[in-house]
Amino acid sequence: MKENSDINWIAQTGFGIKVYSVEYQVPQIHENILEIIYCLQGSVKFFYSYEEFLLQKGEFISADKDAFYLYAGKDNICVSFYFDLDQFSKKYPYIKDILFICEGTSDAESGYPSLRHEEMKGALLALLYYMVRTTETCMEAAVLSQIQRAADHIIQLMVDQFDILYYYKPKTAFTQVQIERHRELQGYMNRHKFEKLPLRILADRFHLTAKYISEFLSRNGLPYQDMLTYLRANASEAYLLGTELSIVEISEACGFSDVKYYYKAFRKWYRCTPREFRAKYRAAEQQEQMDYDIDLRSLREEIEHQILEHYMKAHLGQIGENLEQLL
Amino acid sequence: MKENSDINWIAQTGFGIKVYSVEYQVPQIHENILEIIYCLQGSVKFFYSYEEFLLQKGEFISADKDAFYLYAGKDNICVSFYFDLDQFSKKYPYIKDILFICEGTSDAESGYPSLRHEEMKGALLALLYYMVRTTETCMEAAVLSQIQRAADHIIQLMVDQFDILYYYKPKTAFTQVQIERHRELQGYMNRHKFEKLPLRILADRFHLTAKYISEFLSRNGLPYQDMLTYLRANASEAYLLGTELSIVEISEACGFSDVKYYYKAFRKWYRCTPREFRAKYRAAEQQEQMDYDIDLRSLREEIEHQILEHYMKAHLGQIGENLEQLL
Repeated sequence: MKENSDINWIAQTGFGIKVYSVEYQVPQIHENILEIIYCLQGSVKFFYSYEEFLLQKGEFISADKDAFYLYAGKDNICVSFYFDLDQFSKKYPYIKDILFICEGTSDAESGYPSLRHEEMKGALLALLYYMVRTTETCMEAAVLSQIQRAADHIIQLMVDQFDILYYYKPKTAFTQVQIERHRELQGYMNRHKFEKLPLRILADRFHLTAKYISEFLSRNGLPYQDMLTYLRANASEAYLLGTELSIVEISEACGFSDVKYYYKAFRKWYRCTPREFRAKYRAAEQQEQMDYDIDLRSLREEIEHQILEHYMKAHLGQIGENLEQLL
Repeated sequence: MKENSDINWIAQTGFGIKVYSVEYQVPQIHENILEIIYCLQGSVKFFYSYEEFLLQKGEFISADKDAFYLYAGKDNICVSFYFDLDQFSKKYPYIKDILFICEGTSDAESGYPSLRHEEMKGALLALLYYMVRTTETCMEAAVLSQIQRAADHIIQLMVDQFDILYYYKPKTAFTQVQIERHRELQGYMNRHKFEKLPLRILADRFHLTAKYISEFLSRNGLPYQDMLTYLRANASEAYLLGTELSIVEISEACGFSDVKYYYKAFRKWYRCTPREFRAKYRAAEQQEQMDYDIDLRSLREEIEHQILEHYMKAHLGQIGENLEQLL
């Protein structure tokens, strides 16, 4: 087992990649980085707030800029795709405020697989295969610019199809006006979550009535209070794991007017107390990181195989068991 | 060069396939068979009424149950997918009346490539690859039923996306009611094309006004008279090539009230006279058929390569020149 190495950032693209096998991953926070983990072989367990997913071969999941860790049995191969949101915020100014939910695994409850999941899987596999084929040669300018386009395509899919909006209302065809309104309201809440933030402040700011905002948010996903307490509880993770502040101090720093509201919100979103969460992740940090890097070039045949399989499933219509055996 | 062999029909599926290299193909008519020709390597010229297409590697075209021939340079490999419309008319009762136009070639003027062309290409390549992988083993029941599903999927795409409706109005989102009305009107015209068929007969039959039908057809593709003369001129091909009837007799048999209307219609759709068409195809029939069968199993690597290429183009977003060189 080698030490966990750094992300292999591709010059100037805002995109990085890591190919590895993991038995145990200590908790991580990647600030301002969106990560998508694709399980190329075997399986890997993924913990996220109170949730736990088993990623099987060919499945993927995105991780926001929050704490998480991985754990798995032996002999898996994972690919982490990293996107530096600072670089992508030129094109998508609101990107750091979006809550992404992209769960491309049958273990999730969010209607997988759907066309949008298949499209994302295609974009990930195509980029991966492109990199396998090009890292055999040098990284000339045309290759870098293709990688950048492919990374941008993935971010575009995240923005257009994996905003939390589509998680709560997967069948709604939102208008551009609705999407932008939701983005503005949620963005404002995210940037001001540590302040006192009664509905009427948003109402004043956006020249809308409090009643309209309340109904708009409830109709399109999370109600106002739920969204706000989620943003605050989520932000408290960094304090719990990165500082020695007391629960009361963290509650205050995160904008809760009383620690009992912090406890209530945390329990709602994490199904445990802040103290339990801190203890669990502190213990996890003590364990030894167990992963090692894998050379992407060794995976060409496996990736080709998965592309053929994905293509066949997408284009043969309803698939019989026989195809599974065949591929 | 071997003789042109028969279609390899797959038991009970209504689907047949032929893999071949062709230098010269004598005119053919496959009654009640829809054929889709996919160019797997090299290129092949395709003649159809007055039109002429060059199919390049990776391109495809459908041929209705009409006369056509192929000609090409050397060293091409083509795959013909055959669909027995009698078998598919159980599920699609109107299928024999549909005019299909499926031109998956950059040589056509009908907006290729589009998403619907890409979807069709995917369905064809996936079925082909499935057959490569399964003909290595025996054709057991599960394999046959998968082939049948895949063939049905292709017919469904033809019906839903390559009806002549979409050729003339590719950007219109037709309602189900419009599609069915168009299908009924055109179907009735096709079945009664050899009779006197003034608009008021359709009007009576469908309880609509002649004015409405006239406007409906014009708005959704071919005006009434154009459609009717197309159907008649097209049907006259079989008389011209398959009988010794005179032009006047054929004109009458095909429902034209005067041979001068037959000449006019034929020239509009074929850009030559009936006599010239007959002479051209009669001469073509005298030539020697030059094609030979190819074993599908020898093409596995080439098909895998084309699938990878198609997948990469579909999923990498905008494609740089660099990718073309790579694949």
